[in-house]
Amino acid sequence: MKIHKINRSKLKSVDFNNLQFGKIFSDHMFSTSYIDGEWRNQEITPYAPLQLDPSTHVFHYGQAIFEGMKAYKNADGNTLLFRPLDNLSRLNASAERLCMPKINEEVFMGALKELLKIDNAWIPQSNKKSLYIRPFMIGDSTFIRATPSQRYRFMIITSPTAFYYNDETALKIEEKYARSSQGGTGFAKAAGNYAASFAPTKKAQKDGFTQIIWTDSKSHEYIEESGTMNIMFRINDTIVTPQLSDSILGGITRDSVLKIAKHRGIKVEERKIKVREIVDEYKNGNLKEVFGVGTAVTINPVHSITHRQFRMRFDSYDENSYAMTLKTDLLNIQYGRSDDIFNWTIKL
Amino acid sequence: MKIHKINRSKLKSVDFNNLQFGKIFSDHMFSTSYIDGEWRNQEITPYAPLQLDPSTHVFHYGQAIFEGMKAYKNADGNTLLFRPLDNLSRLNASAERLCMPKINEEVFMGALKELLKIDNAWIPQSNKKSLYIRPFMIGDSTFIRATPSQRYRFMIITSPTAFYYNDETALKIEEKYARSSQGGTGFAKAAGNYAASFAPTKKAQKDGFTQIIWTDSKSHEYIEESGTMNIMFRINDTIVTPQLSDSILGGITRDSVLKIAKHRGIKVEERKIKVREIVDEYKNGNLKEVFGVGTAVTINPVHSITHRQFRMRFDSYDENSYAMTLKTDLLNIQYGRSDDIFNWTIKL
Repeated sequence: MKIHKINRSKLKSVDFNNLQFGKIFSDHMFSTSYIDGEWRNQEITPYAPLQLDPSTHVFHYGQAIFEGMKAYKNADGNTLLFRPLDNLSRLNASAERLCMPKINEEVFMGALKELLKIDNAWIPQSNKKSLYIRPFMIGDSTFIRATPSQRYRFMIITSPTAFYYNDETALKIEEKYARSSQGGTGFAKAAGNYAASFAPTKKAQKDGFTQIIWTDSKSHEYIEESGTMNIMFRINDTIVTPQLSDSILGGITRDSVLKIAKHRGIKVEERKIKVREIVDEYKNGNLKEVFGVGTAVTINPVHSITHRQFRMRFDSYDENSYAMTLKTDLLNIQYGRSDDIFNWTIKL
Repeated sequence: MKIHKINRSKLKSVDFNNLQFGKIFSDHMFSTSYIDGEWRNQEITPYAPLQLDPSTHVFHYGQAIFEGMKAYKNADGNTLLFRPLDNLSRLNASAERLCMPKINEEVFMGALKELLKIDNAWIPQSNKKSLYIRPFMIGDSTFIRATPSQRYRFMIITSPTAFYYNDETALKIEEKYARSSQGGTGFAKAAGNYAASFAPTKKAQKDGFTQIIWTDSKSHEYIEESGTMNIMFRINDTIVTPQLSDSILGGITRDSVLKIAKHRGIKVEERKIKVREIVDEYKNGNLKEVFGVGTAVTINPVHSITHRQFRMRFDSYDENSYAMTLKTDLLNIQYGRSDDIFNWTIKL
């Protein structure tokens, strides 16, 4: 790997007490190019613009995938990565669906380790902050023909981030638009999925909601996911969440929360969930909590869900709620404050 | 509009007898940036790379749409545009679905006219060639957060092109993968739709097919479109084609071919078409022709369609076939060789 370091860090110009998500980037970036069937020119260089021809494939045909993960500092100042190989595995599943080349573990982990070593000072030493890591891949051949790109670029950029709090999360159950379908790309972290979600989300936001709950494109009867989070329901003392399918993104936070819950002795069900069931359980008083789970938010309590004209409210997220208990457990592992009983963290 | 011309044209270095589709670009490009709610900085400049930050929105969240259209030279050397306002109208429909800003007619037509005037020498004077025009728009804010881009870039690039012939078009009816669904982005010319189509298409190509026929994502019982073409069936003496929906791209060539056919007195039906019906009509000997229609191919005869293990063959595309008759009619209008009875061409 070729390494070219910056002359002068931007670090001192950053106000770590006022971090907006995904706006400030660390000094360096990793980059490698897929040319003639091989990943070549692995390098870490100063964070800088790319030069791209107007015919660059990604502008026209959308082969673009990404991952989201975080690095944490433990009390001793060591850097912890959380389940990075699961991100790699999902990246490669996305690559396969989008007809893009895979990245092997050596390249991925080698890049991560070297980049985080060089930009170590960008990983906040704080239990309310972390370094968000964004690996992504784009097709960068320069022709405009609707066939797969022949060249690709894989990069990793990083951004220091603080906890992300929402005042009030008000979700709307979407019954018209779809972000994905069976046989589509919903399980992949594909750029196009997000582009498809913006207009329906904006409409919901104009009506006062914060996000959408997506339902299946076929019948709109089954719950899939919410915004950029997976969604979990506490029905009495059981956590129920939609089972994975090719239209649902398999979140690593989702998987982690389910495993922590099981370990705590909480009953967990991954299965199809009808909108009808949620409404009925709410009316019966059995729906106690709802929360979104994802890398950016960790666990995000949901305060209301609106189905057509009917608004369901959820208010009690005290320390003993499932949402808060599981969030604390997860953060304790991520920041190295508790034993890593699941073998999830990698210390650099 | 600011205009900055090249010092020296690349034109002489281009082999116009060996044009590959979408590989060579004309000397100039048009560009405008959407900043603070307005399209600003309209300019024509030498064709050149863009400088884009690694956090540029389109790499991560896929807001990218495009159009495809052509300019032709008539026998007198005048440039003809074919239905450009229909492209603009579709571009704006795509923009709305992808939560992107619209372009007004003045900007769009002003840019086209000026660009084609400056690069007039790139429009081939040949009845087998034309200038392919690629307007496109990308989100270019520099943050990584799953919300719509705040800034956008709209560009027009052009590429001289020759007729595109396929030796043999062998289609496979796809029953597993989907490129779009109801409530999705299939009717939009969105980059993500193409990315979603590549892997399924590549699988079909490994089995010896040239393209896929997409069916509806819900039941896979109804025919939608083929590759990057709309599809038409001649059943006895009627042209039958899938009716438009939010999962089918409304082709301008599709619309033109249907209007020409009607004008010729050919019966046309736009309706839902079951895969079953196509198989049955083939077995009954009523399915006479199948052809794809689109800007790049104009009209492309289909030689076989395979449904599961059953291969249907179509061989007779002589001068009197619907496919060839309609293609000739369409090209005659596009090149200004016949009266423009539909008012489709705009002479520059």
